[in-house]
Amino acid sequence: MESKRIGAQTLQLATPPAVISFASVGGRMESQGPLGEFFDELSEDHTWGQKTWEKGESTMQQHALSHALEKAGLRESDIDMIFAGDLLNQCTASAFSLRESRIPFCGLYGACSTMGEGLALAALMVDGGYARRAAAMTSSHFCTAERQYRMPVPYGSQRAPTAQWTATAAGCCLLGEGGTGPYVTHVTIGQIVDLGITDSANMGAAMAPAAYQTLRTLFRDTGTTPSDYDAIFTGDLGKLGHDIVVDLFARDGIDIGKNYDDCGLLLYDRQGQDMHCGGSGCGCSASVLCSHLLRGMREGRWRRIVFAPTGALLSPTSSFQGESVPGICHAVVLCTERKEA
Amino acid sequence: MESKRIGAQTLQLATPPAVISFASVGGRMESQGPLGEFFDELSEDHTWGQKTWEKGESTMQQHALSHALEKAGLRESDIDMIFAGDLLNQCTASAFSLRESRIPFCGLYGACSTMGEGLALAALMVDGGYARRAAAMTSSHFCTAERQYRMPVPYGSQRAPTAQWTATAAGCCLLGEGGTGPYVTHVTIGQIVDLGITDSANMGAAMAPAAYQTLRTLFRDTGTTPSDYDAIFTGDLGKLGHDIVVDLFARDGIDIGKNYDDCGLLLYDRQGQDMHCGGSGCGCSASVLCSHLLRGMREGRWRRIVFAPTGALLSPTSSFQGESVPGICHAVVLCTERKEA
Repeated sequence: MESKRIGAQTLQLATPPAVISFASVGGRMESQGPLGEFFDELSEDHTWGQKTWEKGESTMQQHALSHALEKAGLRESDIDMIFAGDLLNQCTASAFSLRESRIPFCGLYGACSTMGEGLALAALMVDGGYARRAAAMTSSHFCTAERQYRMPVPYGSQRAPTAQWTATAAGCCLLGEGGTGPYVTHVTIGQIVDLGITDSANMGAAMAPAAYQTLRTLFRDTGTTPSDYDAIFTGDLGKLGHDIVVDLFARDGIDIGKNYDDCGLLLYDRQGQDMHCGGSGCGCSASVLCSHLLRGMREGRWRRIVFAPTGALLSPTSSFQGESVPGICHAVVLCTERKEA
Repeated sequence: MESKRIGAQTLQLATPPAVISFASVGGRMESQGPLGEFFDELSEDHTWGQKTWEKGESTMQQHALSHALEKAGLRESDIDMIFAGDLLNQCTASAFSLRESRIPFCGLYGACSTMGEGLALAALMVDGGYARRAAAMTSSHFCTAERQYRMPVPYGSQRAPTAQWTATAAGCCLLGEGGTGPYVTHVTIGQIVDLGITDSANMGAAMAPAAYQTLRTLFRDTGTTPSDYDAIFTGDLGKLGHDIVVDLFARDGIDIGKNYDDCGLLLYDRQGQDMHCGGSGCGCSASVLCSHLLRGMREGRWRRIVFAPTGALLSPTSSFQGESVPGICHAVVLCTERKEA
């Protein structure tokens, strides 16, 4: 299988890299949600024993990496490359989490799509023989995000109905040449899509067209339809964004709704926890992947899934300057069998 | 040449990708520097005809990409993947510059090392057959950086003697399977190195140990010494950082000073332009690469060089919280011949 490029954006991996380990850590709200039991570590302490929320977020990443390594019986020196990112200005959660490690580091910024970008690049590095093992890791933190993007948390400012809740969570996934899987078989690298949404409290609507573009491209490039997958998960579109994606596919005569869900709708209890439109943040899709999704695949719940996290590539400054919100979505196909039908 | 990994951090490319085009754009200070004549476009207008400096920075990136495409007779649709980043919070200069394009986009954050990270990843994508052509692009802008990181520009606040001047510049490099070169033969992916420097106005000192670590690793992994290269260029260490790198190698009994220079010392006139310790910013090393260095290689000035941009992975928040400044450096070896001795 030499020809790796299929279509303009999709790559079929010649030697699909295996998920060799994964781990997730989360905070109090995440512990109270329906996926709480699947996390490797949960903490009631928002600072994770540190002096600041920001240092706490770095600690979450360190713990996610440690758990993933420990579960695989590996050490940091066994990882040839790590792709990591977060939402903090200058991506400091990732840089500070890894400054004690000796792992070759590539910093990413893809907003909430970062786990998709990191997983795709890590998979290409392993498939291409550039790394025996590569890691993808992201985090987000409700308190660091609120004070950076919105209002000081103690203000208790009212949130818009379309707003999402930034997850306090981190996820780490290790890929390698050997292992029991699941395996990364395809990746679709997203284009930036901006249809002009300017409401930064409605990121689901801003990102949904990017999710639609990337998923439609994946299906076209691979000659598949939504029903060829046991489940399709976008990252952090929330309720409104999820419904927009369903509508956009319906216009093409495609019913994606039957096996399509969104990580932002899975992390919290939609009835019992008032998260408005759902969860968000780099750590949301990453921790859902590294708790519920990969575990579910290993337990036989799904054979083949699409993991397609979406990112809103705005900043407070761009919004102040009247800019709309560009969206992006990277898709990764995971399959429990290395050679699929 | 199947074995691509040599040592823990260095990759030898089996089919070294060619630089098929490159372009640089800069502002007024850059036009007055010794490399001004090598830029593809220079503007006296800090906003590049836009309403804000931030939009101007995105415009610089758009122009750099357009020039690079035009010089190669290519269109955006000929580029399979672009790796881009900048210093703005949430890397918006890159996202907004590319939101009209349809190029599959991977956002990076590596501070001033970003051009090295992007060039390395783009090279691996082409070498691995994942992209026929891939681009690396970065920018920085004195005014967007000053108001984000330091003081409002109109304050005219005094700068420390160790401070560097953020370049108003962008560089874009296109790599492909065929072409006349130069070629990317090796990349060394950096580790984060933090020796505890807490002065954010002395980033040269903070980043120099990372440059030393990456260069030393490259030399060890490839069995080379500094004299095996016609020239070695770090990115944006400035005068103090440059001299620290020379000192660190001298401790190992290695004289790197003879053919070692720093992009931050090349962009401006050290006598006529008072830039204190030199230039900095993602756009500094990128524009020096995409004006002086690649042009010099094509003109036969150098046969084999190391391009090793360095990044300081701090944020204003991390400094306010008393953190030290983690540094990183990624190295890329460029050679005018595809198969080197």
